[in-house]
Amino acid sequence: MERFLPALGWLRRYDRDQLQSDALAAVIVTIMLIPQSLAYALLAGLPPEVGLYASLLPLVGYALFGSSNALAVGPVAVVSLMTAAAVGEMAAVGTPEYAGAALALAFLSGLFLVAIGLLRLGFLASLLSHPVISGFITASGLLIAASQLKHILGVKADGHTLVELLGSIAGHLDQTSLPTLVIGVGATAFLFWVRKQLKPLLLKMGLHPRVADILTKAGPVAAVIVTILAVKAFALDEAGVAVVGAIPEGLPPITLPPFDAELWAQLLPAAILISIVGFVESVSVAQTLAAKRRERVLPNRELVGLGAANIAAGLSGGYPVTGGFARSVVNFDAGARTPLAGVFTAGGIALAALFLTPFFHQLPKATLAATIVVAVLSLVDLGALKRTWDYSKADFAAMAATVLVVLLAGVEKGIMTGVALSVLLFLARSSRPHMAVVGQVAGTQHYRNVRRHRVVTSPKVLSVRIDESLYFANARWLEDKVYDQALANEAIRDVVLICSAVNMIDASALESLETLSDRLKAAGVRFHLSEVKGPVMDKLQKSDFLEHLNGEVFLSHHDAMKALDPVTTAEADRSARPANSALAKS
Amino acid sequence: MERFLPALGWLRRYDRDQLQSDALAAVIVTIMLIPQSLAYALLAGLPPEVGLYASLLPLVGYALFGSSNALAVGPVAVVSLMTAAAVGEMAAVGTPEYAGAALALAFLSGLFLVAIGLLRLGFLASLLSHPVISGFITASGLLIAASQLKHILGVKADGHTLVELLGSIAGHLDQTSLPTLVIGVGATAFLFWVRKQLKPLLLKMGLHPRVADILTKAGPVAAVIVTILAVKAFALDEAGVAVVGAIPEGLPPITLPPFDAELWAQLLPAAILISIVGFVESVSVAQTLAAKRRERVLPNRELVGLGAANIAAGLSGGYPVTGGFARSVVNFDAGARTPLAGVFTAGGIALAALFLTPFFHQLPKATLAATIVVAVLSLVDLGALKRTWDYSKADFAAMAATVLVVLLAGVEKGIMTGVALSVLLFLARSSRPHMAVVGQVAGTQHYRNVRRHRVVTSPKVLSVRIDESLYFANARWLEDKVYDQALANEAIRDVVLICSAVNMIDASALESLETLSDRLKAAGVRFHLSEVKGPVMDKLQKSDFLEHLNGEVFLSHHDAMKALDPVTTAEADRSARPANSALAKS
Repeated sequence: MERFLPALGWLRRYDRDQLQSDALAAVIVTIMLIPQSLAYALLAGLPPEVGLYASLLPLVGYALFGSSNALAVGPVAVVSLMTAAAVGEMAAVGTPEYAGAALALAFLSGLFLVAIGLLRLGFLASLLSHPVISGFITASGLLIAASQLKHILGVKADGHTLVELLGSIAGHLDQTSLPTLVIGVGATAFLFWVRKQLKPLLLKMGLHPRVADILTKAGPVAAVIVTILAVKAFALDEAGVAVVGAIPEGLPPITLPPFDAELWAQLLPAAILISIVGFVESVSVAQTLAAKRRERVLPNRELVGLGAANIAAGLSGGYPVTGGFARSVVNFDAGARTPLAGVFTAGGIALAALFLTPFFHQLPKATLAATIVVAVLSLVDLGALKRTWDYSKADFAAMAATVLVVLLAGVEKGIMTGVALSVLLFLARSSRPHMAVVGQVAGTQHYRNVRRHRVVTSPKVLSVRIDESLYFANARWLEDKVYDQALANEAIRDVVLICSAVNMIDASALESLETLSDRLKAAGVRFHLSEVKGPVMDKLQKSDFLEHLNGEVFLSHHDAMKALDPVTTAEADRSARPANSALAKS
Repeated sequence: MERFLPALGWLRRYDRDQLQSDALAAVIVTIMLIPQSLAYALLAGLPPEVGLYASLLPLVGYALFGSSNALAVGPVAVVSLMTAAAVGEMAAVGTPEYAGAALALAFLSGLFLVAIGLLRLGFLASLLSHPVISGFITASGLLIAASQLKHILGVKADGHTLVELLGSIAGHLDQTSLPTLVIGVGATAFLFWVRKQLKPLLLKMGLHPRVADILTKAGPVAAVIVTILAVKAFALDEAGVAVVGAIPEGLPPITLPPFDAELWAQLLPAAILISIVGFVESVSVAQTLAAKRRERVLPNRELVGLGAANIAAGLSGGYPVTGGFARSVVNFDAGARTPLAGVFTAGGIALAALFLTPFFHQLPKATLAATIVVAVLSLVDLGALKRTWDYSKADFAAMAATVLVVLLAGVEKGIMTGVALSVLLFLARSSRPHMAVVGQVAGTQHYRNVRRHRVVTSPKVLSVRIDESLYFANARWLEDKVYDQALANEAIRDVVLICSAVNMIDASALESLETLSDRLKAAGVRFHLSEVKGPVMDKLQKSDFLEHLNGEVFLSHHDAMKALDPVTTAEADRSARPANSALAKS
């Protein structure tokens, strides 16, 4: 039972001590989550209450199935941006179709996460290499910050790429609203100050570091309260400051995502990308925090937990969610001990949805934009480009391509370009494996690279060792390489491929070995294998390769040499070790 | 100079002997090529003369730049089908836009081939694993045969998938033209008979095997002549038999492909796929034939040669071409010695275009369809599915997916599915590399897998050896695996990762190693590396990994053990080999 519903495990051992810790953490996370929920809903192009709804039942869904004691689930910046990009192609912002598509996206993403969790396909997430995800986050951060400029300036603008966004804003600069600009720039400056300088100040005033930390995280709440009061006091909403407006009071509605096959098919690629990006980000926070208490996070259970959260979002008026970085760290630092902290947070958000929404009516959108800008700019890490360049040019290429394509063509194309390029570059690298011509170390039965060791080589037998499994990306290369080396020396009559490092031969490589055998046969050269590993040999015997092979398979390479060139081999066997140099050069 | 224009090399050494051989081969290939050119143009949805034009200058283009002495370039079945699928999405059959798009496709494909040839990116072709290409050819053969049924029945029908094609034909069965059916079925039966039984018959009659072979290949020409005469004799074209109709006389026009950026962008994916499929098919024939004379084919020069052929096709009213299998074998068997045979063949086709076209006016389309059906059904190899299943389930999955998607959703989707699946399955396989916990073989400095050998292990140091390079697909798995193993035993204080088989650590794996070090540090465990190879160490030193590593890097694993657990190691050093069993179990 506990295997299917992990919550049963920790609930059974739950005690008062844990209750107190979890409850305190929940209060702090709730305070942090309220402005974030409203802001990220705005970023996703959705009404503010959708952000609150996405911070409610999804947290309960994760608590029931997830494996991290500290992960705080809810709307996050990058996933909100990806939602806006995906849903924006299906419907216009503000329409019921738009909100419906966001529900469907969450639901689909939830189903996908649960499916790959249950099928143990978490491996798919590892296709997102670190440089690609890091480039993606940096570029998304820049794109998000650019998208919020319009709220800070108080102009209308839209677009899904950096060029579109900045062009559109530039075209509307004359409509800038001065009071909005004052609030937007003021809030941004205040939040940057809070982030950089408030904590040292509080520490200097003698506060406990943990209290200072938590007060610092409450910066956005202060900005929200102050700017709401300012709007009320000076009737700024009538002076052109865009405000959040009426938010329905009450708990989330029970919703069903639109069951429209065509819509689902269109949303599926985005749902997969959102799921994988969300999972990769979330699991790495969860693992880092778990390690601090010698706890474990189970990736396949995380997939199911995040899947449950997204299905819950799809059924309760939300949109795609995942574990948030800053939020989870706060949750952990504030003492969260079990996933129940998330359930308590959901309770806090429920109270907010029930009683606080009238208060947000006059909340300026510019304030929310400021919290987003400050949050996402902390994700931007342009230095990573430099570090990756220094470490590996191939990784840099994948990273730079991701950044550029995200900024210039959008998030989905960007991440897909990055994944395709990193896979291609890896395959290109592994398509030229290390291969060595070897000879016998005189007086021994060892065979070593002729370029590095003094060894005896046979004038008529070419011995080649390949240091990699044989598969489609290197099969044809190997075929050409061995053929060319065999034909380069007219005296060669036998070629032996030493397979001691070959763990696998796929069907393409099998075909290439057959072709190689045929080509060498046509050229009057026989082709042998030696030191084939047991499992590889079993597979070869299942095919008709061994019947067609124009040569033999030898157990050890020394057996091969004794059979194919008895004279040279016997001479080398008798020689003293190390070989005399005349022989070594032959 | 010769490096850029390889033709200069063999032209300088050209002699009368070669001239005679090449000229004879050209005559025979020309006879074979004329009906094929007309038929494949029909398959591609193009007027018959386009097939002749594609068999003219492209052959000269290949002869100048290619490296095979036997490859016979021109229109082939699979590429014609892919052309029809790609161009069919841009324009309606029979319109000038359709022919223009085919020109642009050939030109683009030529540019792509030349580019990857010059950039030495021939590696890209190896992404097309053997099961995928084999499944693709089989499925394309079935699809092509189905597409020709309408000509044999004399009905109108269209569609790009098997279901569409068969459905459309079934819907028009009542319009079947009896005389067309007689010609179509008769020609098909005749050609199958020629293929299967004529050669044994001719051999029995005492003909030289080579002559028998060449007469057999002339079957389609006989079918063409007989059915044209039948149409003329009985005025069958007025009785409902669709004929080729008027073909313009004369040499190919000089054409420019339409330079339309949007069209090019839409055609690019198809051009890339056509180029790669054409190259893979062509280079394997060329290599097989070259081996029979101990000659070499240079893949990068083949790319340039085929690229030149396609650019020539785009500039002279043709459509995409590549090396044909049957045709090249005939060329080789008939004695072609240099690429000049191709130039002579082009001359033969030029004569046909100048003088023979009026004769083709009354050629039934059903006859051409019959030659196509008989040719492509020989490509269908359903047995390969069984053989691949027996050899490797992963390869079978990629192959079966390719076959199904080609048949049910079209050629482009099919091949892309196959490539994506084979890459994914390979990455999945390599994402779980072999990893072993090792211990010391007592009395030696060797460390071996604890599961296979009697070894001494330290109670507080975990030694793990990984048998694969570390990269994004296995980085996270390794991180979790090592972390879990370290935490599984409370007594473990140090973990050493033995890197003797690690040839590369990419940026993702570097990040995972850093995270692993941090996670282990948080759990109170130190993390070390041993036996790091020189080039890998150089790269690590370029990053800040070594400063952050919560542990050390040891040259040899024995050094690591001596430093981390001197007591156990010293004891094992002193023990007699093999280790006593009490120690081995610790």
